Amino acid sequence: MDYSQMFSQTSNRMKPSIIRRLLKLVQQSDVISFAGGTPDAELFPKDLLADIASRVIREQGKLALQYGETIGWMPLREQVAAYLKDWGIDCTAENILITTGSQQGLFLSGITLLNPGETIVVEEPSYLGGLLCFRNFSAQFLPVKCGENGLDPAELDAILAKASPKPKLLYTIPTFQNPGGSTIPDEQRGALVEVARKHGLLIIEDNPYGELNYTGKTLRSLKSFDKEGRVIYLGSFSKIASPGMRLGWVCADPDLIARMAMAKETTDVCTDVLSQAIAAEFFKGGHLKAHLQKLIGTYQKRRDVMLSAIAEHFPKEVRYNKPLGGFFIWAGLPEGQNTVELFEKAVAAKVAYVVGTAFYPNEGQGLNTLRMAFCAVDEARIQEGIQRLGVVFKEALNQKA
Amino acid sequence: MDYSQMFSQTSNRMKPSIIRRLLKLVQQSDVISFAGGTPDAELFPKDLLADIASRVIREQGKLALQYGETIGWMPLREQVAAYLKDWGIDCTAENILITTGSQQGLFLSGITLLNPGETIVVEEPSYLGGLLCFRNFSAQFLPVKCGENGLDPAELDAILAKASPKPKLLYTIPTFQNPGGSTIPDEQRGALVEVARKHGLLIIEDNPYGELNYTGKTLRSLKSFDKEGRVIYLGSFSKIASPGMRLGWVCADPDLIARMAMAKETTDVCTDVLSQAIAAEFFKGGHLKAHLQKLIGTYQKRRDVMLSAIAEHFPKEVRYNKPLGGFFIWAGLPEGQNTVELFEKAVAAKVAYVVGTAFYPNEGQGLNTLRMAFCAVDEARIQEGIQRLGVVFKEALNQKA
Repeated sequence: MDYSQMFSQTSNRMKPSIIRRLLKLVQQSDVISFAGGTPDAELFPKDLLADIASRVIREQGKLALQYGETIGWMPLREQVAAYLKDWGIDCTAENILITTGSQQGLFLSGITLLNPGETIVVEEPSYLGGLLCFRNFSAQFLPVKCGENGLDPAELDAILAKASPKPKLLYTIPTFQNPGGSTIPDEQRGALVEVARKHGLLIIEDNPYGELNYTGKTLRSLKSFDKEGRVIYLGSFSKIASPGMRLGWVCADPDLIARMAMAKETTDVCTDVLSQAIAAEFFKGGHLKAHLQKLIGTYQKRRDVMLSAIAEHFPKEVRYNKPLGGFFIWAGLPEGQNTVELFEKAVAAKVAYVVGTAFYPNEGQGLNTLRMAFCAVDEARIQEGIQRLGVVFKEALNQKA
Repeated sequence: MDYSQMFSQTSNRMKPSIIRRLLKLVQQSDVISFAGGTPDAELFPKDLLADIASRVIREQGKLALQYGETIGWMPLREQVAAYLKDWGIDCTAENILITTGSQQGLFLSGITLLNPGETIVVEEPSYLGGLLCFRNFSAQFLPVKCGENGLDPAELDAILAKASPKPKLLYTIPTFQNPGGSTIPDEQRGALVEVARKHGLLIIEDNPYGELNYTGKTLRSLKSFDKEGRVIYLGSFSKIASPGMRLGWVCADPDLIARMAMAKETTDVCTDVLSQAIAAEFFKGGHLKAHLQKLIGTYQKRRDVMLSAIAEHFPKEVRYNKPLGGFFIWAGLPEGQNTVELFEKAVAAKVAYVVGTAFYPNEGQGLNTLRMAFCAVDEARIQEGIQRLGVVFKEALNQKA
């Protein structure tokens, strides 16, 4: 049967994620892969979660195996509300909606707020899954450059002053950004919220990596500067414990939460209750802090090893950032270089990255850029992989020179 | 902050589910509730699932706690494909997409196939969550009466012959329908698929209740009559084991599966992997058959008790069906009676149902109808509740006479 006349315009607009396709290529070989931005599975708290799961099903199974409220499992909502104080957010369970991963928080924000043709400000580069999601709603993108210090409030202000029609939303990953590894400095965050207020935008603050902080200093969320319900904060269980348990949370004004929950009900009724109940016990048992220490110890070392290896093996012309947390180092080759073309050479040399162009809202940009994830590769292989990549890049630069 | 100018048209079109609001009212009292169509939590296979969960996390945790493929956990896709042979469906894992509950299967069908203003044929009455879901896509409803034998192929054919523009989709729950409790007879099923073929419709066959079969005879799915990929079959883990583990599946042509998976990726990346891995082991261990025997034994007795109690206590003028499976008995009072008004009297008499009008695609219809679920109430309370309801109905009929 030929379905080509049956698909909706929305479906015809969709594109599969380039990254997922790349990952499949790379998994099938002995390549050292800096492509996948997934946590290291060796670090999952398996025994702890196994004990909790067994106990939760036996003791709370009548509720944990049953349909749950669309807005979320109350004990988890309470735990999340309490833990968001670490981000300077003063909220209660009333402000929390549990979602099927924070990706669903993006989707519910879009369906609740975006009409076809309306504009959303996005970082350039930005999270591919966010860009693909907002495309579902026929949104227009207004890209704003996201440098090593993330979005610049003054630059954003100038762009918004000229924008017509006015955008409705700003989508930002202010902390240890994906893919750029950038962080908006604490002292700029209030100003950014103020710029959004001035121009009447709501902010979607996506913070999946924020807990993986290698500075030793706490950061404040954009949400903590928000006195009027302008910021929709998205958090995730994926990087702090397990992405297979699909759990995210939205922290926002109860009016927004109610609308997003109403949309959620039509998409999946409620988030997996069993995983919610397990996560609630994980928080309640006080396991988060100790587990984060372990994650931070491992990932921070991997970042340091990747940074020194880059300094040692990459040509001097390659620029790169020094991320304060998260999973990613972002690099730019000199103009004229093309990381899409170099990808094949890299894979031939048994090393992989993600082409930077995948993260740009408009096609054909960032052709000289790339993302390298240090999260899921051990230290020895990071050194080996960066050395291999250095050879590929040196050769490319010599050829062009 | 006033968000009223910020919400999307889609959001403004949404309505909260009446049933969920009713359920909240009813849960707060000592009412015997026939309202909730949720499985009896006493029947969840708690100890079995606790053992499986603990084992799965310890032995497969590196994969089961990690991001999974959007299309689903391969061992579960294989198990589902094998078990669908019971429904006469000849398929492989290639045809299976695992969803976050079968509600997500409805949503993904809608986003993949429906453009604003396009028409979908729906049963009258139909599943409220399906109707609310398709409203997201600005779909037009073409309601077709669903009697005790479900949709009638000849009547559908006549309606489609006159329909302009032609509908694109037919949404049906052919087996133990929610809310009507109706079942399309086996000998009509091929004809129904043929009518869809004749008029160029795709069929969404929603089958969450099909395993709860009290006839002892196997039924064939609509999908089993489909030789060309016209039927999108939706199944669910919710009624056979646990709705809190949000797991459903779509069985369809791989081209449709690929499109639906692409949409799913933007909404939640993948279904909860831990729950998928637990469910795969539940199927693999051969636990389904024995567990279904237990469920069928309990629910069938409750249906029988409710039917005898109705025969004994309801006024003769009340019509009702005798469902062959599932959770629901559907009843109609004489024309002119209003079950919305009677609901308050019922709750005052400490018994609750769902008003039938909630299940009609257009407002203000089915005012004399109601749905009673026998699934989650024990036999003694079913008798007591029906007796109470009989008093309310007799009084109402006497007043009108």
